[in-house]
Amino acid sequence: MKLYWTPASPFTRKVVVTARELGLWDRIEIAPTVWPLDWGYATVQFTEGLAEANPVARIPTLITDGGAALGDSTLICQHLNEIAAGESVIPDGAARWNMWSLYAVADGLLEAQIAIRAEMLRPEAMRSEGFLDKQRDRIARCFDHIESCAEELDGPLNLAQITVGIACGYQDWRDWLGDFRPGHGRLSRWYDAFSERPAMLETEPKETPAT
Amino acid sequence: MKLYWTPASPFTRKVVVTARELGLWDRIEIAPTVWPLDWGYATVQFTEGLAEANPVARIPTLITDGGAALGDSTLICQHLNEIAAGESVIPDGAARWNMWSLYAVADGLLEAQIAIRAEMLRPEAMRSEGFLDKQRDRIARCFDHIESCAEELDGPLNLAQITVGIACGYQDWRDWLGDFRPGHGRLSRWYDAFSERPAMLETEPKETPAT
Repeated sequence: MKLYWTPASPFTRKVVVTARELGLWDRIEIAPTVWPLDWGYATVQFTEGLAEANPVARIPTLITDGGAALGDSTLICQHLNEIAAGESVIPDGAARWNMWSLYAVADGLLEAQIAIRAEMLRPEAMRSEGFLDKQRDRIARCFDHIESCAEELDGPLNLAQITVGIACGYQDWRDWLGDFRPGHGRLSRWYDAFSERPAMLETEPKETPAT
Repeated sequence: MKLYWTPASPFTRKVVVTARELGLWDRIEIAPTVWPLDWGYATVQFTEGLAEANPVARIPTLITDGGAALGDSTLICQHLNEIAAGESVIPDGAARWNMWSLYAVADGLLEAQIAIRAEMLRPEAMRSEGFLDKQRDRIARCFDHIESCAEELDGPLNLAQITVGIACGYQDWRDWLGDFRPGHGRLSRWYDAFSERPAMLETEPKETPAT
């Protein structure tokens, strides 16, 4: 398999942590991508092969062993879970849809974080404080929700835990996002332990290299 | 089940068409939502119950019979497919990941269409022509890709077909999006027939009612 990647993308990190936890990491070839800082408001020059494989031209994009290009991190994680031997990060039965419910909240939180990043990269005159506030409000609602059901983060590893952990990690990495901990004691204690997993320590976010 | 809904959202239409095609439509209660026109760059007053059910506060959100709130249209369609008796819009085996590959392109196309909508609702001074061009370029690449593999749209109904059909329908509905037909003859002929399905005719997009 081949993964179009950057260490700055939380959606890509979700795929990488999932692959590592499922024991699939050594089956994936990494294709590093480059993103000029105007990526949010211009059609930039894409890393060779990316737009040809996936015309949405976004990361993560995974090329499966069967040759399918998957340009959506949820679908990529589902694919990895299907091909993993003996391991799973998607529970069976009724627990599955509760897991996906929490997953979708954490994924929406990641989207809001990235929307702020893209907005702040715009020239200042075209930046909307209202848009930034809308995303900050969304992030606050999502963290409050996760705190209110933090007991769901216990138990066997699953994709909701991975996505919540990555959202916490992104919030810590970007200094223009606030500290998620105040008022969220159960989540904070959970993240203290979760962030020590080898798959999390080995994938800490970094800026995309310039070339 | 309960679905937070508006007739203007193509992601919501994807869920509705899927539910209708799977014979599940009469099991879903519709909760209409209202969206002031500054939804793209302000925290608006949400329709009662929406943000409480799903703190991302987006539509579509489905409350399952088991009480899980699903705030992601892909996950909602997967849930509906799982509970449908005898019908399926997700193929088995290797064909599945090729279907998801095309689905993700069409879904990225929908995201670009909605990103243009949100940008055009901004006050003009904060609007970015570069951002609009980036999304238009993405839409053009996606339609070119779909045309190049239009033969994949044949065969039994699946979620990729539904999503491509809705992308074509949204492109037709919004006069600030161009005609997708020039240079895309195979897709155009496919859509002529697909758009006549009852589930498509019964869900043609309309503006969100003001109240």
